[in-house]
Amino acid sequence: MAKSIGVIGGGQLARMMIPAAINLGLDIRVLAQTAGEPAALAVTALGSHLELDDVLAFAEAVDVVTFDHEHVPQSILRELVSRGVNVQPTPDALQFAQDKLAMRERLAALGVPVPDWARIETTEQLAAFLADHNGEGVLKTPTGGYDGKGVRVVRDAADAADWLADGGPLLVEELVDFRRELAQLVARRPSGELALWPLVESVQRDGVCAEVIAPAPDSAGRLADVAADIATTVAESLGVTGVLAVELFETTDDRLLVNELAMRPHNTGHWTIDGSTTSQFEQHLRAVLDLPLGATGSRDPWSVMVNVLGGPTTGSVGDRYGAAFTDQPTVKYHFYDKAPRPGRKVGHVTAGGDDLDEVVYRARAASAFFDN
Amino acid sequence: MAKSIGVIGGGQLARMMIPAAINLGLDIRVLAQTAGEPAALAVTALGSHLELDDVLAFAEAVDVVTFDHEHVPQSILRELVSRGVNVQPTPDALQFAQDKLAMRERLAALGVPVPDWARIETTEQLAAFLADHNGEGVLKTPTGGYDGKGVRVVRDAADAADWLADGGPLLVEELVDFRRELAQLVARRPSGELALWPLVESVQRDGVCAEVIAPAPDSAGRLADVAADIATTVAESLGVTGVLAVELFETTDDRLLVNELAMRPHNTGHWTIDGSTTSQFEQHLRAVLDLPLGATGSRDPWSVMVNVLGGPTTGSVGDRYGAAFTDQPTVKYHFYDKAPRPGRKVGHVTAGGDDLDEVVYRARAASAFFDN
Repeated sequence: MAKSIGVIGGGQLARMMIPAAINLGLDIRVLAQTAGEPAALAVTALGSHLELDDVLAFAEAVDVVTFDHEHVPQSILRELVSRGVNVQPTPDALQFAQDKLAMRERLAALGVPVPDWARIETTEQLAAFLADHNGEGVLKTPTGGYDGKGVRVVRDAADAADWLADGGPLLVEELVDFRRELAQLVARRPSGELALWPLVESVQRDGVCAEVIAPAPDSAGRLADVAADIATTVAESLGVTGVLAVELFETTDDRLLVNELAMRPHNTGHWTIDGSTTSQFEQHLRAVLDLPLGATGSRDPWSVMVNVLGGPTTGSVGDRYGAAFTDQPTVKYHFYDKAPRPGRKVGHVTAGGDDLDEVVYRARAASAFFDN
Repeated sequence: MAKSIGVIGGGQLARMMIPAAINLGLDIRVLAQTAGEPAALAVTALGSHLELDDVLAFAEAVDVVTFDHEHVPQSILRELVSRGVNVQPTPDALQFAQDKLAMRERLAALGVPVPDWARIETTEQLAAFLADHNGEGVLKTPTGGYDGKGVRVVRDAADAADWLADGGPLLVEELVDFRRELAQLVARRPSGELALWPLVESVQRDGVCAEVIAPAPDSAGRLADVAADIATTVAESLGVTGVLAVELFETTDDRLLVNELAMRPHNTGHWTIDGSTTSQFEQHLRAVLDLPLGATGSRDPWSVMVNVLGGPTTGSVGDRYGAAFTDQPTVKYHFYDKAPRPGRKVGHVTAGGDDLDEVVYRARAASAFFDN
């Protein structure tokens, strides 16, 4: 019998694991909250990732449980493990992707370079931090944030009042003076094998990833080496299994600082579906099953991924295929079967080739057919 | 809403359409005879492709009907069309992939080069043909054959007695003195656009495709041009839509003769999943939906596909992943979730690279892990 993988969450990351599972002959099953989510084709159970009974019933029928998102509570994860369920990444690792305060504390202890940060529970503590950092900072809720949600630039301690009123500590970080954002993806098996993709540049708009360039221009040498060292240290020290995305700031004074961690396939790795010998989705499945990892060489000198954000405001994505496919026949199109909504990630496109400017042009041109 | 494609038949060809549909954001549904067939993930109806009611109920809910195999009877196909179902390829085209006598008659009328052939209904007619062709020939049942089934080399007219006793005419062809077998794949939209992949070499063992080399070595120039012309003529003259595979003999006297036609993705095109900008499965979906076709350039100078035939005689395919993945991390693995059985196509592997000998070695080495 084929090995079975249970994915908690039915979003586009679970969706994009399905082709990889089909190719490898693996049995993939998804626990989704509702019918009609992007990974619907592999949904075998509807239920909540916040309900132990739902998760347990789903998890006990598969060889390994993994995730589309990091929102399954630690209490449920630990109960699964105590009942013998194979959970990858483990709760011990996943806590650092779930809780940004825990992540900052752990990375600081490891000596991994991070922005200046502090744990705050009062406006006075925040005021003190701001006073030490040019009067500005980035305030984050430790849990539950994504794509710019749960993140706020603050220049006055009073700006934190509403979040502090909700109780619980907050994380404040220095507003990093960065040149660009980068991401280093790595996959790691429980038995220790580790494979890195090239360092990439991630262009964010309104707190959401808009474009990814692989490899990051002018990154060969020191920059790539430092990023690989950081990702390797994090993956090994935290015992991460599956794909780990380390989002980085390249500062104007040439340092690399860790911004965020994700322990699952990540938007900055979507280019690997078409641009790498082994996609992040295939690699994640191999890794969580503790199978040998695939080669991570690039298929083209340059790959550029552009997200389709929002989608058409009239008609459907499918109405735009004709014009896009005609104009850009070499671009690879990926759509998640999500209804258009402003800012929503409804798909992405990837172009590859020898000339970066030309590759960027093709990817942006293809994506633009799905705007407005 | 996403466009929906209904595939009749739940085998590996339907299975390999699923990743392409997921990527493009299309809704794919499969009519299979039983649960647990390779395309199980997309099965929305169980039923027989030989029962009008089963096919009709399935077909009326989708935007276009296409096929995993060519075994749906013309009577059912024509009834679908008469009820307004969009069937691609059309019954008019598909009849030439279903009936080898009809195919031979039509190609001969078009002036497309084919082996000498005759329609026979008696042993006397067969004896006359053999007498004219060095006492040997290839006897074929006009319908229902595949992978060497329904094909027999004959050197005595009495060898045909059992098949003739079943009634109906048979096809006899000269035993072609060929150097190698080639295949030219092309995709065509209803509105006429057409795209060809490179001519490939197909190595057969025991009447079953064992390996495919893309492009066919030493085929650039005249050979590739002639093959492209033949495939274009066939696709356009027969009104083929979707993928058309034209299997060819390269004779020892440097001619190309059409052996067989298939109007669906074909084993000789599996290399395109990993080796071409647009796979035959994605292109088939685009074509049957009359969407603009994707680019068909190769991703590597050489791609080699090796079928996994039979599969392990002990344990399961999955038991062999560890050794295979470790030894050949650059090879792409594809398994169809079929139980091992001697000679059965249970999967395939594809390698790509610059040096043909080395690419062949990697593909064969990866496949060999799943033998015996």
